[in-house]
Amino acid sequence: MKRAVLIAIGDELLSGLRQEGNCCWLAGKLSRAGWNVSLMEVIPDDEEKIQTTLNQWIGKSELIVMSGGLGPTHDDRTRTAIASFLGCSLEIDQKAYDEILFRYPPDMRKNLARCADSQGAVPVLAKAVHNPAGSALGITFTATGSKVFAFPGVPREFRAMVEAELAEEIRVREKTVCSLYIAGWAESLLKDRLAPVIMQKDLHISILPSPGLVEFVIRGTSERTAAAEREVRGLVPADCLPSGAHSLSEAIITLALQKKITIACAESCTGGMVGMELTSVPGSSSVFLGSAVCYSNQAKKKILSIDDSLLEKYGAVSSQCAEAMAEGARGIFEADLAVSVTGIAGPGGGSAEKPVGSVWFGVSFRGKNEAVHSIFPGDREAVRIRSAMKALDILRRKIAESGE
Amino acid sequence: MKRAVLIAIGDELLSGLRQEGNCCWLAGKLSRAGWNVSLMEVIPDDEEKIQTTLNQWIGKSELIVMSGGLGPTHDDRTRTAIASFLGCSLEIDQKAYDEILFRYPPDMRKNLARCADSQGAVPVLAKAVHNPAGSALGITFTATGSKVFAFPGVPREFRAMVEAELAEEIRVREKTVCSLYIAGWAESLLKDRLAPVIMQKDLHISILPSPGLVEFVIRGTSERTAAAEREVRGLVPADCLPSGAHSLSEAIITLALQKKITIACAESCTGGMVGMELTSVPGSSSVFLGSAVCYSNQAKKKILSIDDSLLEKYGAVSSQCAEAMAEGARGIFEADLAVSVTGIAGPGGGSAEKPVGSVWFGVSFRGKNEAVHSIFPGDREAVRIRSAMKALDILRRKIAESGE
Repeated sequence: MKRAVLIAIGDELLSGLRQEGNCCWLAGKLSRAGWNVSLMEVIPDDEEKIQTTLNQWIGKSELIVMSGGLGPTHDDRTRTAIASFLGCSLEIDQKAYDEILFRYPPDMRKNLARCADSQGAVPVLAKAVHNPAGSALGITFTATGSKVFAFPGVPREFRAMVEAELAEEIRVREKTVCSLYIAGWAESLLKDRLAPVIMQKDLHISILPSPGLVEFVIRGTSERTAAAEREVRGLVPADCLPSGAHSLSEAIITLALQKKITIACAESCTGGMVGMELTSVPGSSSVFLGSAVCYSNQAKKKILSIDDSLLEKYGAVSSQCAEAMAEGARGIFEADLAVSVTGIAGPGGGSAEKPVGSVWFGVSFRGKNEAVHSIFPGDREAVRIRSAMKALDILRRKIAESGE
Repeated sequence: MKRAVLIAIGDELLSGLRQEGNCCWLAGKLSRAGWNVSLMEVIPDDEEKIQTTLNQWIGKSELIVMSGGLGPTHDDRTRTAIASFLGCSLEIDQKAYDEILFRYPPDMRKNLARCADSQGAVPVLAKAVHNPAGSALGITFTATGSKVFAFPGVPREFRAMVEAELAEEIRVREKTVCSLYIAGWAESLLKDRLAPVIMQKDLHISILPSPGLVEFVIRGTSERTAAAEREVRGLVPADCLPSGAHSLSEAIITLALQKKITIACAESCTGGMVGMELTSVPGSSSVFLGSAVCYSNQAKKKILSIDDSLLEKYGAVSSQCAEAMAEGARGIFEADLAVSVTGIAGPGGGSAEKPVGSVWFGVSFRGKNEAVHSIFPGDREAVRIRSAMKALDILRRKIAESGE
């Protein structure tokens, strides 16, 4: 296995002002293409430290990718550090920099031309790398068997340059990694259920839980990976998202399009999160009609036609209200299927009978209404996210089970 | 300045399956408390590599914090690595582990008792650290002037343990860092406007743009920082969020509570994101009434009372429709103020006249309607996020300007 080392450069990363994301993203790409990412490091915008780090890994790692420190400000030290490391001077690569300037309108071009000293300069013993998404040139060189790339830290630019320059390195030759998304399971219980797969010695399994969805990652030879995928799907058939879907929303939109089922929501404590998730999928407009975010009781009554007496008798967080909200949303949006969420996200508003985290879900499908109750742990944000995921999973199962 | 080194341990981080967040979070805390975080590193679940890394930093850094590798599975190697590093054996710290078990219900306690070998074991030359949020013990020891802590990688556990064990280290003694959030500026233009502050030699300035909001971070002595904050507020008075507000939503809810202004939304392309953002703030229910997420034209007509003829003549993405949506939302939710968003998020649906990224915003405030147009670059997600942030900023400015 070839080794890669990824280095992020930036004081703003070490002071916690920005979370490093480029190396993580690239690690995923390289790892899926069969690389062993042996280390990721975040170091300061410091010439000496950049040189020390290069010295440490040159010759020990086939690929070294650096992110950041190539911009026009005084903080950006990666160019000079590489020049010092190679023991050469920096020179403006006018041809490569002109290719970038050419893309900008004349007024911006003038401004950028003034930054040529920094953004357009390359160590004479290295080569310029074109930047298709920004204005700073990248740098590449090879030394003692290590291929080194330095790309700007702006995520959009970093990714565009990786995809252009490292296309061969990140190409997946063989499907040796398979991710399955499994809904509605707690991690510990899922581990027991999938033990027959997890215990197979020639597979490497990672279980990555996120709210409402567990990512089950299988690594092995392409044959063994495919067999294990079939086995998992057999063990939890109703809970696995279809292959190709990376989220509950993607699964829902795909299924709803296939079955021609239109969807609406009524949201209280999630405040629009369910609608937002569904509409994050391109093409969702063909099946998603809308969501009535009714935070106040007044809005629940007026928009979703909830009876005053129902709210008085049972309260807004009740099976009765959840069912009525779903039915109201199905009616007003003229949808086939509607889901509702009403609960207590906290920090205030809880009681002994209805504690913080208590959430009711209603579902209305072609005239039939049901309600489901959950109590979620965690703070306001955790309760809201889990509630939204649960509402989405209710939609997904309803559509999957429907006969059409 | 005291130095800290932060080390995350985990194969899942190096294979890009999980993004490292603990070190970033802790770096922010330490940095605000005056520490120099000189390095963050992600290394594999590998005993030898953990030892090498400890050897490298012991004696060179006052504080070393490790995250991950303390759980019950075969992948977790941090305990044995520390024991090898200290040249001692591992022993179960029954008293410390019992304190944890005690918190769990009897059936789970039995299960956890079986993991004592891993989760409850501590190198005899080190000390156990109580875990208030999970079941694995942490580890601490001091060697050659370096204080070393190893905490579990589960973010909730990591944070709880840092807050308990490193309370003194992360306490902010002096306000030497000030973050100002500035809305509605592009980074490059803001740099010019705030040049008089940026150019001051005794300040360290970081400019961190995110969609719709730039975080302007000032570091220096507490006096100089306070003076610079006043200067920035003087230069862009209407654009700075009030101190204490970290997001547009927080600023909106605080202002609306002060001025007793109720809020509603009508959302199309943002799909609920504006409502979700507003309701992420505890206490928002006192001023936020709801959002009508009307994705389909049918829903816009029926729920927001948009005229058929208006939609036919101008289309859903128009100033006319945006104004009518805002007015409709204000009416149906009986709110003082409503904002609307209608645009083309892409990837499909664009035309020469109305390209992808074209978004109209409507605002209706006590009987007066207006509309604003923007064209946002980027993909579907970028357009949606920028649209939501712009809608929030419109709300914020309206409330801030209102006389009450």
